[in-house]
Amino acid sequence: MSKNEIRIFCPATIANVSCGFDVLGVALDNVGDEMVIRKSAEKGIRITKLEGQDLPMDTHQNVAGVAGLALLAESGSPEGFEIEIYKKIKAGSGIGSSAASSTGAVWAMNELLGKPFSTLDLVKFAMEGERLASGVAHADNVAPALFGGFTLVRSYEPLDVISIHCPNELYATVIHPQIEIKTSDSRKILKTHLTLADGIKQWGNVGGLVAGLFTEDYDLIGRSLQDHIVEPIRSILIPGFDKIKSVSKEAGALGCGISGSGPSIFAFSKGKDTAQKVAEAMTHVYQKIGVDYDVHVSKINTEGIKIID
Amino acid sequence: MSKNEIRIFCPATIANVSCGFDVLGVALDNVGDEMVIRKSAEKGIRITKLEGQDLPMDTHQNVAGVAGLALLAESGSPEGFEIEIYKKIKAGSGIGSSAASSTGAVWAMNELLGKPFSTLDLVKFAMEGERLASGVAHADNVAPALFGGFTLVRSYEPLDVISIHCPNELYATVIHPQIEIKTSDSRKILKTHLTLADGIKQWGNVGGLVAGLFTEDYDLIGRSLQDHIVEPIRSILIPGFDKIKSVSKEAGALGCGISGSGPSIFAFSKGKDTAQKVAEAMTHVYQKIGVDYDVHVSKINTEGIKIID
Repeated sequence: MSKNEIRIFCPATIANVSCGFDVLGVALDNVGDEMVIRKSAEKGIRITKLEGQDLPMDTHQNVAGVAGLALLAESGSPEGFEIEIYKKIKAGSGIGSSAASSTGAVWAMNELLGKPFSTLDLVKFAMEGERLASGVAHADNVAPALFGGFTLVRSYEPLDVISIHCPNELYATVIHPQIEIKTSDSRKILKTHLTLADGIKQWGNVGGLVAGLFTEDYDLIGRSLQDHIVEPIRSILIPGFDKIKSVSKEAGALGCGISGSGPSIFAFSKGKDTAQKVAEAMTHVYQKIGVDYDVHVSKINTEGIKIID
Repeated sequence: MSKNEIRIFCPATIANVSCGFDVLGVALDNVGDEMVIRKSAEKGIRITKLEGQDLPMDTHQNVAGVAGLALLAESGSPEGFEIEIYKKIKAGSGIGSSAASSTGAVWAMNELLGKPFSTLDLVKFAMEGERLASGVAHADNVAPALFGGFTLVRSYEPLDVISIHCPNELYATVIHPQIEIKTSDSRKILKTHLTLADGIKQWGNVGGLVAGLFTEDYDLIGRSLQDHIVEPIRSILIPGFDKIKSVSKEAGALGCGISGSGPSIFAFSKGKDTAQKVAEAMTHVYQKIGVDYDVHVSKINTEGIKIID
């Protein structure tokens, strides 16, 4: 009994995750877009509806379109698809807006085609959407959107994505100050070299964070959420970053860092109550300095993309 | 019922473990020294016997003596101790010879004093032995010798040592070419900076290795045993390194790298039979090029230092 149409939830995602620059990502549970994908008599892919954000509807200029075309090119399928996108994640927010759309398209098309492709294949197709969005075919956001939970992109050649166990009581708080930082600009300010001493700290913390997730050691997760390399540079572009970070920890957050390339800031907490207190502490900072914001509190989403009715 | 004397096994250890430069270490099960430590009426510490290696017996010049004195300084104990050291690990071999002695001394003294100190405290005392041996108070070898299994030294300030789960069928093969590389010399040739691209690969692999150990995914462990930063430089000092590495993998090893700062080379394998085949393949290389060697095949030691009768 094959379906001709599905409606899905496509999660927002936090990439980089402090020490895990360019390798770690995690999916959110109640922050994300909706999409409807249906088979159509006409070959190829058409974006037939796009609500919530001002983004191109031309298939070749839309990340969902481009990712879907990458899948079709590989499948050799004679099918055509229509895509409706209901954006709730703002473009340029740093919580994987483009990844939500590109993963949603390929995940749903794979479902409608009877799942000819593995999740890892879907990551590769969705990366083509990221290439369109930022110039770099990275997997930091598309991997957690497709696999759910925490993912580690261990290597690109060959592509190797590892699912990392996630403790049940881990919540994320994300605050999005209403300024735009383009991923491409945020990449430009990165230094191309680092000291060996900073590198050692960084991979020590990545090891600690992965160990903390597997052993459900919340304190270790918190101690490991440090970034001595990228955060000191990128945080300069984010208003009130240091203050947000300090009040989050005072409110009980395990740790706090830049989501993706910013400007969103994430914090992890044990339990929803603490995550909610962290959200309040964060919002007070932006209310005081007069920065508009969106704020989200979410459980970690361990499934990734989901079918909704 | 307190004892006045104990005899212990002090394991050899592999530090660095490819991608885990300066943070990861692991203890071996059937390679190590023996020590006898006994309470004495005379205050302070005396090295009363030292067999197997030509090392200083003066307490202040001996790593076991210096580590023991660090413990006594902290404890304020009026007790005195005699230490006998039966070295089987060769100094300068790269499998934690100094760490075996310094950890053995403090572990046994702690036992005889009724365990006033935590294992983490013992790591700190033993690090003073490492400072004497190499000029750097590192914990790469003393942490696995004391905790057993795989350890991650996440940070030094404050000192944070994490035990990493070890799969049951993991075996190490270690070959020690009979040349000496001093740790201090081996540190000198390291570059002080690395590219961000190499850093990302390295912390991706550390994350993969830690995940592979927790999930008992031997293939992932093997894929993650890569070092793009230190191995390409240090391996130049080790005769036949590239050949040893390639034959090890052909013989079934999961991965292969430099043990500590060399010259020993380690490989990990799933199961003793494969580890034994790897040992044979390694020895053929050194027999052919005429390099003397010691070779060891060992299960991973998940206990660390042990009392023997």
